[in-house]
Amino acid sequence: MADRVYNFSAGPATLPFEVLEQAGKDIVNFKETGSGLIEISHRSPEFIEVIEKTESLVRELLEVPDNYKVLFLQGGASSQFFMVPMNLLGAGKKATYLNTGTWAKKAIKEAQLFGDIDVAYSSEESIFNHVPANDAYQVAEESEYLYFASNNTIYGTQFETMPQSKKMLVADMSSDIFSRKVDVSKFGLIFAGAQKNLGPAGVTLVIIRDDLLEKTPAHTPTMLSYKTHADKGSMFNTPPCFAIYVMGEVLAWLKNLGGVEKIEEINREKAALLYSQIDASDYYRVHAQDGSRSLMNVTFNLPTAELEAKFIAEASALQMKGLKGHRSIGGCRASIYNAFPREGVVKLVEFMQVFAANNPA
Amino acid sequence: MADRVYNFSAGPATLPFEVLEQAGKDIVNFKETGSGLIEISHRSPEFIEVIEKTESLVRELLEVPDNYKVLFLQGGASSQFFMVPMNLLGAGKKATYLNTGTWAKKAIKEAQLFGDIDVAYSSEESIFNHVPANDAYQVAEESEYLYFASNNTIYGTQFETMPQSKKMLVADMSSDIFSRKVDVSKFGLIFAGAQKNLGPAGVTLVIIRDDLLEKTPAHTPTMLSYKTHADKGSMFNTPPCFAIYVMGEVLAWLKNLGGVEKIEEINREKAALLYSQIDASDYYRVHAQDGSRSLMNVTFNLPTAELEAKFIAEASALQMKGLKGHRSIGGCRASIYNAFPREGVVKLVEFMQVFAANNPA
Ligand SMILES: Cc1ncc(COP(=O)(O)O)c(C=O)c1O
Ligand SMILES: Cc1ncc(COP(=O)(O)O)c(C=O)c1O
Ligand SMILES: [Mg+2]
Ligand SMILES: [Mg+2]
Ligand SMILES: [Mg+2]
Ligand SMILES: [Mg+2]
Repeated sequence: MADRVYNFSAGPATLPFEVLEQAGKDIVNFKETGSGLIEISHRSPEFIEVIEKTESLVRELLEVPDNYKVLFLQGGASSQFFMVPMNLLGAGKKATYLNTGTWAKKAIKEAQLFGDIDVAYSSEESIFNHVPANDAYQVAEESEYLYFASNNTIYGTQFETMPQSKKMLVADMSSDIFSRKVDVSKFGLIFAGAQKNLGPAGVTLVIIRDDLLEKTPAHTPTMLSYKTHADKGSMFNTPPCFAIYVMGEVLAWLKNLGGVEKIEEINREKAALLYSQIDASDYYRVHAQDGSRSLMNVTFNLPTAELEAKFIAEASALQMKGLKGHRSIGGCRASIYNAFPREGVVKLVEFMQVFAANNPA
Repeated sequence: MADRVYNFSAGPATLPFEVLEQAGKDIVNFKETGSGLIEISHRSPEFIEVIEKTESLVRELLEVPDNYKVLFLQGGASSQFFMVPMNLLGAGKKATYLNTGTWAKKAIKEAQLFGDIDVAYSSEESIFNHVPANDAYQVAEESEYLYFASNNTIYGTQFETMPQSKKMLVADMSSDIFSRKVDVSKFGLIFAGAQKNLGPAGVTLVIIRDDLLEKTPAHTPTMLSYKTHADKGSMFNTPPCFAIYVMGEVLAWLKNLGGVEKIEEINREKAALLYSQIDASDYYRVHAQDGSRSLMNVTFNLPTAELEAKFIAEASALQMKGLKGHRSIGGCRASIYNAFPREGVVKLVEFMQVFAANNPA
């Protein structure tokens, strides 16, 4: 572990080292079966135990009510952009969307193929530097749901508290699921690509209220209907076994650490360390407005683009990798998901002080 | 490796042991980067090298012509059942399908959602125990393509030679890709779930002639259009990085072994060993008719279901696992894909002799 770097990548993102070590062994010989984890049938008792364990940890750690199904799907979070409206809307039906970043905007584009989409709020004109307060938009009476991205990975903004509405909520929680408490009962559907807080790319977690399974229009392709997967425990076809296995290991690690409540505390402390440093000097500026700051992705700027490039290069040489901001906004981004260690944040903060002192604007 | 079993599973299936060992290391620390393979950004130079290597091995080993795109998609082979007609057909357009097994039948069902599907041949009445000869069916003049499954995993049948037609071919090669030479130029599209000959579940290989990328109807969800993925080198969204990595390692292993021509030779010899044993005694019976026997999945019966159960249990005790036939046909099935070792076949054949002698019908 001596040569392990601090990996600030926005996703795929750093995972608990002990999970990697276990996966490294299980891939070669899973539970002394004499076969590697990725070679065994998804219908074998060994794999069924894996998927059931992963599902039950999802339920336990997020306190998922019994009337919700937990699904493990393929296609990334991006496939949920169309699957949500394909399954939940119908011709002429309306839904309300909040346009708070790249991923929300892409979801809106796909939803427009399936229904009447009301974009009730957009922060695009201010480079997506905030998310709206509850009273800043209206949800139409006829809307089937209110859709939002709880954390905007690219812009570093997050809903500090979830939107409140009489309508059911639908959320893309790809970049903050399991990082803080959520009242699942307010949601019709939650989805999250695994590759930030949950594991490797290749599986998408979907949590759906079971009455919604009946809404899918006839003539929807079998694989695109949530009901297909719900009815078969995500085993209608071969699931992405390895990614589901790693998700289970990551959740077991989280449970062992103290669960969502505990990680939320740690996440708040890590983010506070970083934001305090940024706030303490004029040298660094946060992209997100107050009240919208993400605990997961901290986006910030230095005085010039040249200094940013130098900062990223020097940090990288010090084994702090992946600090470059997304190409659509530039600057720097420190992604500090659940598995990102506190010591890495401390090291970054110290480096920021030294760098600012050595490189006056 | 001492405790490694012979795993006859139909998929996920046995992989080369050296690939598992390498993956076990790379998961913990990939190429001395200080991050595990499943933690690094899909946009990192390290991962781009992985996906490019995998693609170039696909091209080299299958001799893919330059006017074909190689895609790495999610959703399993089952998602191709609807993506093929969704992209290649249009309202009122016709395609010809051959119904030679469970997977072909499922593909037909999905295709019927998108066009006029002509099922030109079905072997269902004879429990899918054969595939048709070229002169046993007609391909309609107006058909856009002729669809078939080159190897029927469940029933143990295979097209010894690919169907010939003036129309372009579209094939599900999930269970025999890279096991024998194929003239890709006869095909409009080839797809294969990875979990038999290529790696873990979680990625589907698609090879598509590039002029077909323009056929997708407007208003198709972005993620469901082949063009989306072709234009972005399978990186429109986060790809299933780990599964693509393993595919690359498996193909490197195959190349090192001598490529497709060499593995075809080995596959023919392994299958011949097993079929000869079955043919040599009345005790064992092959499900597949002569001329349709699969080199990948050998399906056979014993005199009674009780003897089959005993056979499977005793083989399992001797570390030969996964010999139970699919629930839809029962009996036994030995899946002997590329990575299944010859010694495992020899061991099975010896066991078959002993078992028949010890357990008269
Ligand atoms: C909030 C959010 N939604 C969706 C996506 C897209 O995920 P995927 O690449 O799995 O399609 C991302 C990717 O970073 C994201 O951060
Ligand atoms: C020939 C064939 N096609 C399709 C499939 C379905 O693949 P998936 O489970 O990846 O959807 C299988 C699975 O065994 C198969 O053998
Ligand atoms: Mg964003
Ligand atoms: Mg400041
Ligand atoms: Mg079949
Ligand atoms: Mg015989």
